[in-house]
Parts: sequence; structure tokens; C-alpha cells
Amino acid sequence: MSTTEPAPRIAVIGGGQLARMMAQPAVALGVPLRLLAEAEGVSAAQVIPDRMVGDYRDLATLRTVTEGCSVVTFDHEHVPTEHLRALAADGVIAHPGPEALVHAQDKIVMREAMARFGAPQPRWAVVGSAADVEAFGLPCVLKVSRGGYDGKGVWVVRTLDDATEPLAAAEATGVRLLAEELVDFRRELSALVARSPSGQAAAYPVAATLQVDGVCREVVAPAPDLDPALATSAQELALRIAGELGVTGILAVELFEAVDADGRPVVYVNELAMRPHNTGHWTQDGAVTSQFENHLRAALDLPLGSPAPRARWSVMVNILGGDDPAVGRLYDGYPHALARDPHLRVHLYGKELRPGRKVGHVNVYGDDLDDLLEQARHAAAWFRGDLGNESE
Amino acid sequence: MSTTEPAPRIAVIGGGQLARMMAQPAVALGVPLRLLAEAEGVSAAQVIPDRMVGDYRDLATLRTVTEGCSVVTFDHEHVPTEHLRALAADGVIAHPGPEALVHAQDKIVMREAMARFGAPQPRWAVVGSAADVEAFGLPCVLKVSRGGYDGKGVWVVRTLDDATEPLAAAEATGVRLLAEELVDFRRELSALVARSPSGQAAAYPVAATLQVDGVCREVVAPAPDLDPALATSAQELALRIAGELGVTGILAVELFEAVDADGRPVVYVNELAMRPHNTGHWTQDGAVTSQFENHLRAALDLPLGSPAPRARWSVMVNILGGDDPAVGRLYDGYPHALARDPHLRVHLYGKELRPGRKVGHVNVYGDDLDDLLEQARHAAAWFRGDLGNESE
Repeated sequence: MSTTEPAPRIAVIGGGQLARMMAQPAVALGVPLRLLAEAEGVSAAQVIPDRMVGDYRDLATLRTVTEGCSVVTFDHEHVPTEHLRALAADGVIAHPGPEALVHAQDKIVMREAMARFGAPQPRWAVVGSAADVEAFGLPCVLKVSRGGYDGKGVWVVRTLDDATEPLAAAEATGVRLLAEELVDFRRELSALVARSPSGQAAAYPVAATLQVDGVCREVVAPAPDLDPALATSAQELALRIAGELGVTGILAVELFEAVDADGRPVVYVNELAMRPHNTGHWTQDGAVTSQFENHLRAALDLPLGSPAPRARWSVMVNILGGDDPAVGRLYDGYPHALARDPHLRVHLYGKELRPGRKVGHVNVYGDDLDDLLEQARHAAAWFRGDLGNESE
Repeated sequence: MSTTEPAPRIAVIGGGQLARMMAQPAVALGVPLRLLAEAEGVSAAQVIPDRMVGDYRDLATLRTVTEGCSVVTFDHEHVPTEHLRALAADGVIAHPGPEALVHAQDKIVMREAMARFGAPQPRWAVVGSAADVEAFGLPCVLKVSRGGYDGKGVWVVRTLDDATEPLAAAEATGVRLLAEELVDFRRELSALVARSPSGQAAAYPVAATLQVDGVCREVVAPAPDLDPALATSAQELALRIAGELGVTGILAVELFEAVDADGRPVVYVNELAMRPHNTGHWTQDGAVTSQFENHLRAALDLPLGSPAPRARWSVMVNILGGDDPAVGRLYDGYPHALARDPHLRVHLYGKELRPGRKVGHVNVYGDDLDDLLEQARHAAAWFRGDLGNESE
């Protein structure tokens, strides 16, 4: 039985769980993936047969892995944009492309772009010294312009002393620092859109996200009690950002929901991510087309699938390693979590439990939000080993 | 970043599309699969990294592929049961096990079992000669007891002359032949259940299936206008067969819906399949838990997921190669089919189009059955290249 490739091959840079979760719709779409993984056995390397191990900062490696691929996409945003320009010259097109991607790599470039086309955002400034920070005003948030993630590279600064560490860190690494107004937000929202090279776009319902120490814990879609006009404007904002920046693939716009000086609800752009995003994992089970499938469709410039929700409420809760890394293996949580809720949807990443590490998530959907939150939190707790140990 | 296996490894014998579609829930469940494929590059071998090529009829090969696996399951039903007993002695448990599986391998053994516990079935007899066929009565259906599939090894016999070919075929291959009453059925139904080793079972809604020349073309779930009492009795029948035969994993009971001598609606057992089944592909998008995920859960004796439907109607239409194998590549159908219906769910198998070959299917779900049938048929026609060629 001979077989051929029915579809163009997509190179995926980065072997984390986002690449892993692209593998599922790739199977259904008949789209072959070729993976560049950081190491043998990482999350996506466990499930994508056509893979190599190498350094995404090395152009020769990128050329090797993309050979025979028409497009390249990403598990993370760290591939140098000059390498993507070199690949484009070879005929391998990146989605998102370098001109868009830089806005997810560099927070100052992103802030400048938001300012340029009038997207609502916190007051901000580039700072290089304690005097700059003082002039900006306290309290504020300091962020490294490049390389931060999941709360790393972000400091809440209430006194000038608090600024010493971030200023030293920026100086040591040669990365620029920006100060942002500490927004008194009601909650964090995520406006997730997909956009294809030919300009088709699809907006998912705006989700509410609970972040703890900069790490996403829970997502509810659609965001409960969100003002409908604000929801629409958040979607329009994300679509506009995707269009203005020329994003191809998934764009997640993380937003602060707050009230302005006149007491009106407003959103401010917090961060951009140009890849499937933790705040969109609910779409795997809660939307007609998952963010992972629409990311692949966009990379191939195929018509996008519907982003419509399939249930009134969808809830995602991350499974994070607890403080005691010795507690159980993830698999131990299965019988309990699955037996308690036959509707539970489990997504594990093939990673060991370690303190604070994201090793999976659970999705649930239905009509009763309180029930769903309780179910998902309980299941996530089983997986992390917080429940049931007394009796064992 | 080191990683470990969080779950027991499952060996899967056979590299067809059923194994391919097991790979998707295996990613989500964090369950590693090891594949024995018939050849390099076959459907499942494209998407399962841990794979080898070999002959499933060879015990040494089976021992090699199952080494380090706690359980073994199947893409097809052809592994010799004596090999499964040998593997069990090594500590590798087959799901389904040999005592169950033989009923999906041998139609005479299956008919005898159905008779033993009073399952409704067509009148049948083992036949070895034209005289036996004449004594059974014409018209009838002749079937080889072993090795038939997708309409092969099945003959409708209206005259004794028609019996010459099947009798010769059986004689030549040493396979027994059975005769079955030609049931005047209204339509074909499928009762799909999952059963785990500890005896938990889940029944999917009974589906209606359209078969053409013995090949499944379309499935509608739940079966439209099915008498509710008959639907319940079909589910109970499938659960009873699974329990009586000790099936573990998915069992598909293909049924004829007919009326008995008193004009009452009845079902008769036509065939059994002990693996995910074409008539259950709708569950990938139309049920809370797909048949592929529940098959894996059952193999690991994990609690089963809910088989509840997620929409009022689900429709599956197979993509079969047309008469002109030169027409297009499958991928050519994408832009048209996806643009026309953003709700369409596509599942391709990584196979070349060939006349009559199953190369994929489409699923749709929603409230309006006529619309869904039209959408799914239209999309399948685009993929097979039947539409749009005039203008090219």
C-alpha cells in the first residue's frame, strides 16, 4: 500500500505542548508536520514522527528542518526574525511572519505599534535608570522587553528599591526595560482570533482568565457578565491588531478589563501572543474548530473553521505541579478524575509533574458555570495529587 | 528537559485509519502508542512515532512490538487468537481478548453464540454443497465464515447457479461457508458500545447506516424515526453481547431493522466488529467521548467517557475514491469544502484516492438533518473530485 502526502508539509519550531496539540488536528486534516524539538522526548516529540532535535537560533538547523516544507510555524515566539527573512528568501514562508512576530517578541515594539494605531493600553515608557522609573511614577510594573514569560521578567514596583533588581537584570542581559502603569483591573480577558494570509479572520468568544503569579490557572468562555458592547469591541480590537500587524495564524490579545475615569468599562492591551495560547485551550472541546486547527488552516491559507462555541459555558483549568514533586504520577489521577465526571476532557502533555510546571489541562462544558468550575478544579486537583492521598 | 511516560504503553496492531484515529485521543490522554504497521508510510504509521513494520501473523513479531506494553489492541480483527493467548502468557493482555475476538473473526462461531443466548438473528446454516444450499432455501446470502470484509466474501444467491462461485471459493481456501436468510430489512442500524475489563459499559445512540455494495457510505446518529423501544432494545442487545462474549473495547453490532411476521419492528444481528467502527466515526465530533478514546480507555481499564450525543443530529459521509483515480489529489477539495461550510469536520487518512477506497470522511452535526446530509454529501463529493472539474 503506497501512500502520498495529500497536503503541504508544515514545519513546527519548538517541541512544547502547543506543538503537541497541533498534532491532533494535523492527523484529521491529513497535514504532515515536521518538528524541530529542543531535545529528545519533549512533549511534541512524543507524538510527531517526523522530527529532529536542534537549536532554533541556528539558521542552518532551521534550513534543514524546513527543507521540503512550504510553510513554517511555531510553538513559541523566540525564533530570530532575521532567520525567518532568510527562510522566506528560500521560499519557506513563516506564519506568523517576522514583521508580525516581532510584536510578540518585543514588548516595546508592541507598545509602540499599539500607540501608532490607537489601541487602548496602559500608560507606558521605556526606562533605563531609577530616575526614569521615578519620573514615570510609582507604583508601576517593570517588564523586560524581550524574553519574559509566565510571570518571569515582570516586577511590580512599589518603591524605588523594588526597581533595583529589574534594572540590574536588564543591564546584565542587555535587554531594554519598560515601565507600565499598574492597572486597577477588574479581571483579565483574552480575545483570541485566527487570521489567514489571504485576510480571512475568525474571532472566538472573549474569555475570562484567572492568572496567579503571572501563570494562567483558569479560563471561562465566554467571560461571565461581560458587557456585550465591550465583548464586541474586544473582538474588533483583536481583529484590528491582527490586520494591522499582518498576523497569520492565531493571535491572542490579553486584555485588562477596567473602568475608565468616567466609570465606563474599558479594555487595555496587556500582552500579545502569536500562536495557540493557554487562554484558548477551551476551544479544543468547547468550540466548533479548535485554535490548534485554525492555526494550521491559517498557515496553509485554507478557509478557517467556525470559532463558534458549542456550549453555553466552557471552562479550562490547568494542571500545575504542586509543591511536592514526589506526589504520584499524573496517571494516578486518572481513575478518580474520569470516574467522577464522564464528561471531563483531559489533555496531558507527556511531562513529569514538577512544582509550578504546566503538565496538562482539563476542559468541561455545559450550562451550569458553578458546577463546571467545581468539576474542573476538582479534576485538576486529583491530577496534581492534592486529593486522596490521606486515604492511601 | 527529561520526560517520563505517565501512562502504560498500548501496542496497536495494524496501521490503517482506525489506528490513525486512535492516535488523536492518545495524545490528549498522554497514552503512548506503539504501532505494528503492514508497511512503511501506511495511514497510522504517518502519525505514530513509535512504530515498526512487520507481519501480524508472526508471533515473534507480535512479541517484539508488545515488549514493554501492558496491553495490546487492534486496527483489525485478523490477529490469530493462539498468538494472543501466547502474549497473555507473557503478561501482555489483548483487548479484545481471544475468546471474544474469535466471534468477530468467524461468522459461524458468532452465529452459534448468538443462538446460544437467544439474540435475534436471521435463520442460518453451515453449508458445504449445492444440495445444502438448496435444502436451506433460495434466495439466501452465502458468506465465508472467515476473512470477508466490506462486501467481499458475501454473495446474494437467487439460483443454485449463483452458489457455484462461493462454493468454489470456500473449497479453494478451505474456509467454511454459511447460508443466511435474505432479510427483507427496512434499513441497517449500528449499536455501538464500549466495555471495559472491569465490566463498565457505555452505549452510544443507535445509528442508521447506508451501505452500498457492502461498503458503508453514510451514517446518521441517532437513527431517524427509530421506535424508542426498539432503540433501547438494540442498545441492550449490544450491551448483552459485549457482556456475554467478554468484549473489551468497542463493539459494533450491525443490525437489520425489519418487521416480524406480526408486523412489529425488530432487529436482527448481522455482523459484529470488535474495534472502532466506521458506523461510529460520527462520535469524533458528535459525542462527548469518541469511540477511539473510549476504546483506549477500555484497553487501560480506565473509567469510560460519556457516550452522550452533543447535537441533535450527527451525520458522517465517507470519502470514497471515484472511478477516475487520476482526478485530483484529495487536498484539492479542501478550499471548496471548507469555505462552503465552516462547521464541516474533516478526517483524512493519508491515503491516495483509488476507485472505491475509503480515504476519509466528513462529519457534521446540528439541528436540521436534511441540511446536514446535503452539506456532508456535497463536501465528500468535492473531496472525491466529482464537483468543480468542468470549470477547471
